[in-house]
Amino acid sequence: MNRKTDNLNGIFRETPEPPYYAVIFTSERTDVDDGYAETAQRMLELAAQQPGFLGIDSARDDALGITVSYWKDLASIDEWRRHSEHLEAQQRGREEWYRRYTLRIARVERSKKFDADNAT
Amino acid sequence: MNRKTDNLNGIFRETPEPPYYAVIFTSERTDVDDGYAETAQRMLELAAQQPGFLGIDSARDDALGITVSYWKDLASIDEWRRHSEHLEAQQRGREEWYRRYTLRIARVERSKKFDADNAT
Repeated sequence: MNRKTDNLNGIFRETPEPPYYAVIFTSERTDVDDGYAETAQRMLELAAQQPGFLGIDSARDDALGITVSYWKDLASIDEWRRHSEHLEAQQRGREEWYRRYTLRIARVERSKKFDADNAT
Repeated sequence: MNRKTDNLNGIFRETPEPPYYAVIFTSERTDVDDGYAETAQRMLELAAQQPGFLGIDSARDDALGITVSYWKDLASIDEWRRHSEHLEAQQRGREEWYRRYTLRIARVERSKKFDADNAT
């Protein structure tokens, strides 16, 4: 994950008390890099501007990428999924960048945080 | 993620139609590696043997690790969280391996898969 997006990251940015929603995106990439990093960065910035956006966590290793974004409600998620620039990115993703992915929409019911600096 | 665990991975292993549950674990590690990799691998293998386990996805880069495990219901998750060997690992995690983490329990309501090999 680009360091510039650290301030968007769910682990650094507090999500509210549940309930809220999570979009879990797990993906395997192709070998095509053309435009991928720029578009991923742009989508992060654009998502963060959407109504109902609460935060995002993203990690990628050789085999798998996982991005979890957090949203106030299903309506916010639907609106973001239909955003015109996001729709274009989704199409390029299917045509060029992703070999396989799974998108799951889930309602967060409980959450618990641990911080070693504040542990008793 | 260790290649030996590929066959446990949610993206390779089919999860059923929703609803089911996801445990989203996002973490920042400390610099302590002692026993971490072995315990993480052992927990993966042990989780996969629990009743109600449906699959797991895990990715870690320098800044952040994300592990999402999938479960049939809340009862399965509670049982796994109280498993004695898992409780020991959780305690070592808080004392040694993790600087910060967030654990979220979410009900998966919708899912969609894409596979470039089967795209039309």
